[in-house]
Amino acid sequence: MAGLTDQPVIQAMRYAAQGGKRLRGFLVLESARMLGVAETRAISAAAAVEALHAYSLVHDDMPCMDDDALRRGLPTVHVKWDEATAVLAGDALQTLAFEMLTDPALGAGDTRIALVAGLAKASGAEGMVLGQALDIAAETAAQPLTLGQITELQAGKTGALIRFSAEAGAILAGADRAPLRAYATALGLAFQIWDDVLDVTGDAALTGKAVGKDAAAGKATFVSLLGLDEARARATDLVRQAEAALSPYGAAAQNLIDCARFVIARQS
Amino acid sequence: MAGLTDQPVIQAMRYAAQGGKRLRGFLVLESARMLGVAETRAISAAAAVEALHAYSLVHDDMPCMDDDALRRGLPTVHVKWDEATAVLAGDALQTLAFEMLTDPALGAGDTRIALVAGLAKASGAEGMVLGQALDIAAETAAQPLTLGQITELQAGKTGALIRFSAEAGAILAGADRAPLRAYATALGLAFQIWDDVLDVTGDAALTGKAVGKDAAAGKATFVSLLGLDEARARATDLVRQAEAALSPYGAAAQNLIDCARFVIARQS
Repeated sequence: MAGLTDQPVIQAMRYAAQGGKRLRGFLVLESARMLGVAETRAISAAAAVEALHAYSLVHDDMPCMDDDALRRGLPTVHVKWDEATAVLAGDALQTLAFEMLTDPALGAGDTRIALVAGLAKASGAEGMVLGQALDIAAETAAQPLTLGQITELQAGKTGALIRFSAEAGAILAGADRAPLRAYATALGLAFQIWDDVLDVTGDAALTGKAVGKDAAAGKATFVSLLGLDEARARATDLVRQAEAALSPYGAAAQNLIDCARFVIARQS
Repeated sequence: MAGLTDQPVIQAMRYAAQGGKRLRGFLVLESARMLGVAETRAISAAAAVEALHAYSLVHDDMPCMDDDALRRGLPTVHVKWDEATAVLAGDALQTLAFEMLTDPALGAGDTRIALVAGLAKASGAEGMVLGQALDIAAETAAQPLTLGQITELQAGKTGALIRFSAEAGAILAGADRAPLRAYATALGLAFQIWDDVLDVTGDAALTGKAVGKDAAAGKATFVSLLGLDEARARATDLVRQAEAALSPYGAAAQNLIDCARFVIARQS
């Protein structure tokens, strides 16, 4: 039997937390910076949302869920190790995310508890997990999803955590959350629409995951419902809305605005 | 597509949280009561440890883990629904556990953060998940586990959460955690030894789960390593140690002492 620290589950946690765009961690750090919070104070919250996101990918990739063999250009955890390791590594990454939010550097107990509450609400059965459950239910539904249903699904599956990531800066600063929430709501939807665009137009070598999968599965997506041109137009409009939401912050919001523009320029 | 609140994942969460002995929730409430903390203040912490425990059972029962079809006398979640629902319901129960620890009734922000930190440490890759990983690794190990290894495995897999549950009362009361920690460490080990005894001597109709499973799998247990009589004697000795640890509290500790005695009297 291997020792404590060289258990496959520990290696798999580290593996799953590597790579990716770090969009969510960036949103935490940049929303904090915009509101005058130092990176040294915000860094554990950024690490927490990335750990939470990594857990969700490990579980979503499992054979009983989306059954993906490739993630960020590498074999998924259940392929590289096995399903038991994928369950446990995902479980422990979720725990780690909440543990990171107890870091005293984040601020007073009440601030840290507000972060814990926000992350829990974004990721649990009212947020990310609900979105994933709706996504799986849609696969066996008699009718393809409507645009309203896909939008609702996305708001949970990817939107809630993106929204929390941007709001985290306001929580750390003790500032009004509304502008960052409006920004991130538009950003999150644009992000998902663009993911659907890339599933049709993308290059697996660039995206680091299988492409054409949704279309092959006959799954309703923003592109299948709107067409490519209209999907692109909506994403562009959402990015404009995201920018407008940050107008109160003037030039300090430039990095977040650039991030929104990146979302609909990216090839991966 | 079903609506939001009637999703199978929500039903499965409720299902998985029902039944059981409620040992961990009892330890929270009773350690709190012993130290003068009202049940109304402690109840969310008791619910949190039970939700955390329920999540661990749902995932541990999955085919890629312990592959159990029966739990608390009922079909396990992946049998009653499917594996995807089991992954998601377990994930959301873990999230719910941390969310419950944000309840303002538990006390000041610092108190709640101490509970979040304690639950994370008990349940993550340094605690419960590590124990489960060691348990799975043992199944394919060339040699059966030694007594030291089984004890270490148990300290993580079931011991850590039992320890945190008892310590939670001291966290809520702002009291010394050491006596409750010593009590729960002995109690947790006695509990696991007795589980191994019941796996040999128990009745599936009473335990609500399959019996004789470990022996059939040739798995090393406290009983296979010590024999039935010595395993019973050690459990009895541990219960005496648990009682002694609570001597500072006199008669106020009677319910916790009764609980320790119950652990080695129980038939399920």
